[in-house]
Amino acid sequence: MNKKLVVRLLGAIMLIEAMAMLPALIISFIYGDGDAKALMMTIGLLLVLGFPLWRFVHPSESNLRAKEGFVVVALAWVLLSAFGALPFVFSGMLPNFVDALFEAVSGFTTTGASVVTDFEGLPRGIMFWRSFTHWIGGMGVLVLTLALLPQMTGRASHLARAESPGPSFSKVLPKMGDTAKIMYIIYGILTLLEFVLLVFVGKMSVYDAAIHAMGTAGTGGFSNYGSSVAAFDSVAVDVIITIFMLIFGINFALYFRLLIGDWKSFLKSEELHWYLSIVCLSIIGITVFTLPQYGNFFTALRYGSFQVSSIVSTTGFVTADFDIWPQAAKMILLLIMFIGSCAGSTAGGIKVVRVALLAKHARREIGHTFQPRKVQVVRFEGKGVEEGMLSQVAIFFFVYIALILAGSFVISLEGLYDVETNLTAAITCVSNVGPGFGQVGPTCNFAGYGPFAKCVLSLLMLCGRLELFPILVLFHPGVWRKG
Amino acid sequence: MNKKLVVRLLGAIMLIEAMAMLPALIISFIYGDGDAKALMMTIGLLLVLGFPLWRFVHPSESNLRAKEGFVVVALAWVLLSAFGALPFVFSGMLPNFVDALFEAVSGFTTTGASVVTDFEGLPRGIMFWRSFTHWIGGMGVLVLTLALLPQMTGRASHLARAESPGPSFSKVLPKMGDTAKIMYIIYGILTLLEFVLLVFVGKMSVYDAAIHAMGTAGTGGFSNYGSSVAAFDSVAVDVIITIFMLIFGINFALYFRLLIGDWKSFLKSEELHWYLSIVCLSIIGITVFTLPQYGNFFTALRYGSFQVSSIVSTTGFVTADFDIWPQAAKMILLLIMFIGSCAGSTAGGIKVVRVALLAKHARREIGHTFQPRKVQVVRFEGKGVEEGMLSQVAIFFFVYIALILAGSFVISLEGLYDVETNLTAAITCVSNVGPGFGQVGPTCNFAGYGPFAKCVLSLLMLCGRLELFPILVLFHPGVWRKG
Repeated sequence: MNKKLVVRLLGAIMLIEAMAMLPALIISFIYGDGDAKALMMTIGLLLVLGFPLWRFVHPSESNLRAKEGFVVVALAWVLLSAFGALPFVFSGMLPNFVDALFEAVSGFTTTGASVVTDFEGLPRGIMFWRSFTHWIGGMGVLVLTLALLPQMTGRASHLARAESPGPSFSKVLPKMGDTAKIMYIIYGILTLLEFVLLVFVGKMSVYDAAIHAMGTAGTGGFSNYGSSVAAFDSVAVDVIITIFMLIFGINFALYFRLLIGDWKSFLKSEELHWYLSIVCLSIIGITVFTLPQYGNFFTALRYGSFQVSSIVSTTGFVTADFDIWPQAAKMILLLIMFIGSCAGSTAGGIKVVRVALLAKHARREIGHTFQPRKVQVVRFEGKGVEEGMLSQVAIFFFVYIALILAGSFVISLEGLYDVETNLTAAITCVSNVGPGFGQVGPTCNFAGYGPFAKCVLSLLMLCGRLELFPILVLFHPGVWRKG
Repeated sequence: MNKKLVVRLLGAIMLIEAMAMLPALIISFIYGDGDAKALMMTIGLLLVLGFPLWRFVHPSESNLRAKEGFVVVALAWVLLSAFGALPFVFSGMLPNFVDALFEAVSGFTTTGASVVTDFEGLPRGIMFWRSFTHWIGGMGVLVLTLALLPQMTGRASHLARAESPGPSFSKVLPKMGDTAKIMYIIYGILTLLEFVLLVFVGKMSVYDAAIHAMGTAGTGGFSNYGSSVAAFDSVAVDVIITIFMLIFGINFALYFRLLIGDWKSFLKSEELHWYLSIVCLSIIGITVFTLPQYGNFFTALRYGSFQVSSIVSTTGFVTADFDIWPQAAKMILLLIMFIGSCAGSTAGGIKVVRVALLAKHARREIGHTFQPRKVQVVRFEGKGVEEGMLSQVAIFFFVYIALILAGSFVISLEGLYDVETNLTAAITCVSNVGPGFGQVGPTCNFAGYGPFAKCVLSLLMLCGRLELFPILVLFHPGVWRKG
């Protein structure tokens, strides 16, 4: 392992995090809520520790192998979260470090599960930072590093592959750094567009609009209100956020296609068709099932479509207490919580492309039982899919489920909550959604869990965000062996 | 499709079912509970309908292709259950046909989920038939057909493959009919042994011992007492049943090895090692977690080991209300409910061999991420496992989970129970266990579900018993196409 290169990259990432805290610092100066000190202390710490690592550690070669790529990604995310948690501790908002770490991991992984119980009078600079972690975590901090420091990371396809959601990374431009840049530009423009629309509607302050635009863009779901988006009780706000949550659940490579005028690729994308079908069916189902409860078609449609797009995009904003919805509606939410959105978006979950491949693979195998000699290739996006890829996706699914079951077993050791709560807590964390059912439902939060469960759930969130393997390799003895 | 052959085989199976009702008829004559008429009517119906099909339909060729094999197996199980339900209806024990069908499917698939609410004064002949369905269903009715009519079914490896649990069928003798015979002989001897031991202990009547021996052998779990095995409150009974449930969860091909003096193969079986490790770890875990509740190590060990062996063998007998156990203990039960026992046993679940292959496959893939070029073969039972098999097992797991999620969604449409109940009802039915948690917990039953949910759960039980694909092919359009 090229340890020097790993250390130097981690140093660079600490510098980038320090830089990323500047907007929050500016906000804290503007509002004067007394949280500037906490941010400055963290920034100082990051600079003091990060600068020497970046400046004085000189690796003999700058080529990153797969192994180092994964280790960098995993360690970078742990480091980011650990330092990202400090402003919460220093400001006294979450004095317990485990709580603060949970909140930071939940932010960076764009989960949006919170341990904050009282939203009254929280310092606005820190709260901005909390939501800004969503924005950085959504597109990926390594992708940001690639965009900012392309010369440093060499041929860093491993980095992007490890951090990018989905079974494969779409390199839309020949140079990785250029791809990263264009992705961040598209991301920034879409976020800005949502922000402007939210301000334009006039139901939100500029500050609230920024918080919710970042929460949507990263598909994170942190709000600065205890009741989430329900606090605004505005149809226009609901509609804008519903649409943008869906937009941020689509593969960004498709937006690049649109940008260069290639409408056809966009419209013909098979994953997009699956995604929109899942969304439409879920909205129809939930509207029908909650109709008796709401008594009005438009109310049911409004809350149903908001919640579907919030859960499928793994954002986790809330406008309705779906924990008291009929069982069938809850089951739909549970299903789409697993599925998530498209590969290459900022969303979590298993990803639509994987679910589509699993469904096609399963169908092929069922046919195979009675026609054992017929050779049939599974096709996706108009191309034949390799058997190795099918097998990989299927075992990914197993690891996903095994992690959820193991995770909910481990947190149940605390003996606090029922099976439904523990199971959905694990699902919502691995899928980076936010709310679950029961005691972690839309009107509750994760503050009730003990420090042990909070650490386990943080690990699950990291596993989910980095698509399992980059975190799991850290537990594989082979990765620490020489060579 | 060779329809004539399919029809003739179904006729033979009806005759075998008529024959299988004779022991119950004898019991009903002995006790004179007035249920002989119901059994005789069903036997008469089976003979009148089955005999002409078997006698007068002459297929032009007697060779069974894979497609026909699967169709025969699936239809045979549906037919068996439909006719097996009639004694419940005719005797007035379960006058509603859907209830009776659920009970019969639960019997044949060795699930043991019941809709019977009052066990007082039920006719003993019918109750014997109810438990006898476990015994036949455990080893398989097609296997029985192979043993009785080897000349009729030709080279019927498809039949055995479709009905036998596990990814591959161990043909211990060159002729399929001989294999089937030896399996039934081993099965019979083990059942008899448990029966004798239970009678010998003196806590059970001869009748009760027969009921519980059959329930154990098929890993079914029907009892003739509402409180299941807890009704006897005897340590000796608990110990005998605990051990025999574990015995019936082991691959029968290994007992054949023992029979021919090949101790080595038995002791070296990798699947057996995994199985026993899972059992031991689960018992230790549950004993520790329930210790505070029971306050006594031996009581916790007694109830813990009984319940672990009941759930892992997918029998479903109950001696303790595990629904009120600590969450961590419940989670262990949930995990082993998925896993089940060894391939080639009478148990359900995903099967230990599949779980072992999934774990090894996952481990290989995790290593693969940082050593993309290293070729590594997954080994099991000392041999390299083909990639195709790994992929098949992984997609089997996906279909298993998808079926559980889809099933619990569909039954939640009735809007009766909570997520925990509906989810564990689907799991316990697909895994052929019996009890779940919540409203289908160990002290409850399935009577509360509506007819729609009962039909869906019956389908799930059939899917689980036949390892998904033979039932799912019926929904594949290709199977009904010519050719």
